[in-house]
Amino acid sequence: MEFVENGVVAPKGFKANGIHAGIRSNKSKIDLALITSDVKASAAAVYTSNLVKGAPIYVTKNNLADGYAQAMICNSGNANTCNKNGIEIASETCKILAKSLNINENDIIVASTGVIGLPLSIEPFKAHMDEIVSGLGNTKMHSDLACQGIMTTDTRKKEVAVKFTLDNKECYIGAITKGSGMIHPNMATMLCFITTDVSISPKMLEKALKESVNDSFNMLSVDGDTSTNDTCSIMANGLAGNKTIAKENDDYYTFLEALKLVNITLAKEMAKDGEGATKLIIAEVKNAKTVNDAKLVAKSVICSSLLKSAMFGADANWGRVLCAIGYSKADVDVLKVDMAFASKKGYLKVCENGYGIPFSEELAKEILLEDEITIKINLNDGKGEASAFGCDLTYDYVKINGDYRS
Amino acid sequence: MEFVENGVVAPKGFKANGIHAGIRSNKSKIDLALITSDVKASAAAVYTSNLVKGAPIYVTKNNLADGYAQAMICNSGNANTCNKNGIEIASETCKILAKSLNINENDIIVASTGVIGLPLSIEPFKAHMDEIVSGLGNTKMHSDLACQGIMTTDTRKKEVAVKFTLDNKECYIGAITKGSGMIHPNMATMLCFITTDVSISPKMLEKALKESVNDSFNMLSVDGDTSTNDTCSIMANGLAGNKTIAKENDDYYTFLEALKLVNITLAKEMAKDGEGATKLIIAEVKNAKTVNDAKLVAKSVICSSLLKSAMFGADANWGRVLCAIGYSKADVDVLKVDMAFASKKGYLKVCENGYGIPFSEELAKEILLEDEITIKINLNDGKGEASAFGCDLTYDYVKINGDYRS
Repeated sequence: MEFVENGVVAPKGFKANGIHAGIRSNKSKIDLALITSDVKASAAAVYTSNLVKGAPIYVTKNNLADGYAQAMICNSGNANTCNKNGIEIASETCKILAKSLNINENDIIVASTGVIGLPLSIEPFKAHMDEIVSGLGNTKMHSDLACQGIMTTDTRKKEVAVKFTLDNKECYIGAITKGSGMIHPNMATMLCFITTDVSISPKMLEKALKESVNDSFNMLSVDGDTSTNDTCSIMANGLAGNKTIAKENDDYYTFLEALKLVNITLAKEMAKDGEGATKLIIAEVKNAKTVNDAKLVAKSVICSSLLKSAMFGADANWGRVLCAIGYSKADVDVLKVDMAFASKKGYLKVCENGYGIPFSEELAKEILLEDEITIKINLNDGKGEASAFGCDLTYDYVKINGDYRS
Repeated sequence: MEFVENGVVAPKGFKANGIHAGIRSNKSKIDLALITSDVKASAAAVYTSNLVKGAPIYVTKNNLADGYAQAMICNSGNANTCNKNGIEIASETCKILAKSLNINENDIIVASTGVIGLPLSIEPFKAHMDEIVSGLGNTKMHSDLACQGIMTTDTRKKEVAVKFTLDNKECYIGAITKGSGMIHPNMATMLCFITTDVSISPKMLEKALKESVNDSFNMLSVDGDTSTNDTCSIMANGLAGNKTIAKENDDYYTFLEALKLVNITLAKEMAKDGEGATKLIIAEVKNAKTVNDAKLVAKSVICSSLLKSAMFGADANWGRVLCAIGYSKADVDVLKVDMAFASKKGYLKVCENGYGIPFSEELAKEILLEDEITIKINLNDGKGEASAFGCDLTYDYVKINGDYRS
């Protein structure tokens, strides 16, 4: 399994594009992204758990009811959420795109991201659909353009592709993602569009997607807010030519492993690019009573505003980690907890059996000044393991979110 | 029911004092507080829900098992938590105080607040106990000194006292509190010491305390972290001379009402003084399906980092409120939600039936620039009501918590 170039167009038979369609007033910002498959593909998606859902989610759910799709379209600059005519606009977008691509309007995954409660006009879509379709291509640039089209407060593109072998066939998975605020376990203001040329049934594709999301995007938190528009979708067009995966066989697990690699890589990228973040924080929990206890602890730690602030200040305030473990609702024996901070500068044990131990403040500072910190938590109470991904809390988070609408 | 002066010494038969005992290195900071009753009092306390608990909590729980106490002692500068000899130190503190006051060592409520995991020496207590006892008094200054002794990152003293009538007798409740970070529903790094001269059985006192805390401190969040040391304790010495409250009669409800007034007033003060906060945010929820749904919604809204940042920026981003309602886990019909922002500058409806409505951005800004904002949420779906208390998220929160230990 190796990382390769070309993002969402790395898999065979996919094209992408991104243009400025005028949804945003800033003309230098790409605000519309499109990904298409040459042939109809198995497709699946997972959505936000928020009761308030963006209008495009309802349309996409309906379109994916049969398990197939051929295109993904997404605008940034407007979430198309809490608008009275939101569903109408999302449906109309699909109609216009279907006509331009000459495909069925039910074979489209549609998404929006940006400000909530701002009416979205259909005009930019009408005026620019043929332009975005005619510019579709399968080079790295095309994946990059689509990736830029879905960005909001993201400061960098987040795309990845991997190559692996199934049934002696060369297979690829590619993905682009956005999201840097309103990100919290059980999805985030995150959108992720995944493409693969693997041949797999819609049912097994959905199963693999859910499983991989549980260990990646659902273990990611930037600010504890679960957004209204989160969608992680995948199209699998089968052009790799492998024997179709239709049950939990070895090929399924190889595919799942590749998909997890893609999604965990992107989840870490998203945490690192969390709004205002200066560093990635990984909470790595071992030997919990159950996997669920490990998850609760890992998520609680990376969600603590106090710990996040301490990480920004490179302050080895391990008491805040222990405190977050204590209120995580996990079944934990506090007097068994060991803890260490680690980065590429070293490894430093700070707590043993729930009590502090003497440590070098100088080494602690050196370790915590790095931009990727792992908090290693050993609960010494079972075999459950989990990792969660977060970032530090900084002045810039407040700045970015103090006046997002203007 | 009226507000009066003198904090914890407003009720008859209470004395207080605060001194610098050398627990903190900063000599200008009072770090030890003491409150005593002339006679043994009914007593009760509620504690943090965190699995990691400060050592003093174990000692206080044990001492309150019989329902009586006569003194409250608290140091700041050190939480006495995650220290191997923590319980020993807390017990020894009680012994020294009991000797100095000539009372039973089991009649003492002991508490600590400050950094976690730092060993606490008994020496400052030994050296300064007679000094703090000999300085006890019942003037406003004495309550102020005790209040200063429990402060950590608090920027101002939080004390209150009310006067009311029970059984034709003049009664008082007084209280001091601390806490400005690590504050979250189900207690906070908050300590609250309440005194009253009402005569009430230990059982009814505990019941009233719990009930009042549920509507006040448990509806308060500054940063989503639940601390290890939270304790809200009360002593009722009976010197008002009312007929002892021993069941849920009218007198009990009058007392409960007074206690709620005290605790809600302090909860608001704490939110307003949240670390780095520039304003108090009240989420006022009406017509929820149940009281519990109302509480879930109110707490979810004041806990949203995105909304808190928007409030700092005086940005009427109501979509973030709706988003927080959506992930609150309350049973809510999103299409029935009405919402308005209010402050002393006015009242502005921004959302009706789950959709945005046009509003004046100028008036919104004017309203949101005030230092006390109410977000009025009408769920139009029942009769449940609740309010939660929070604050904005600011640069200073990050600054204060980026390097708290140094």
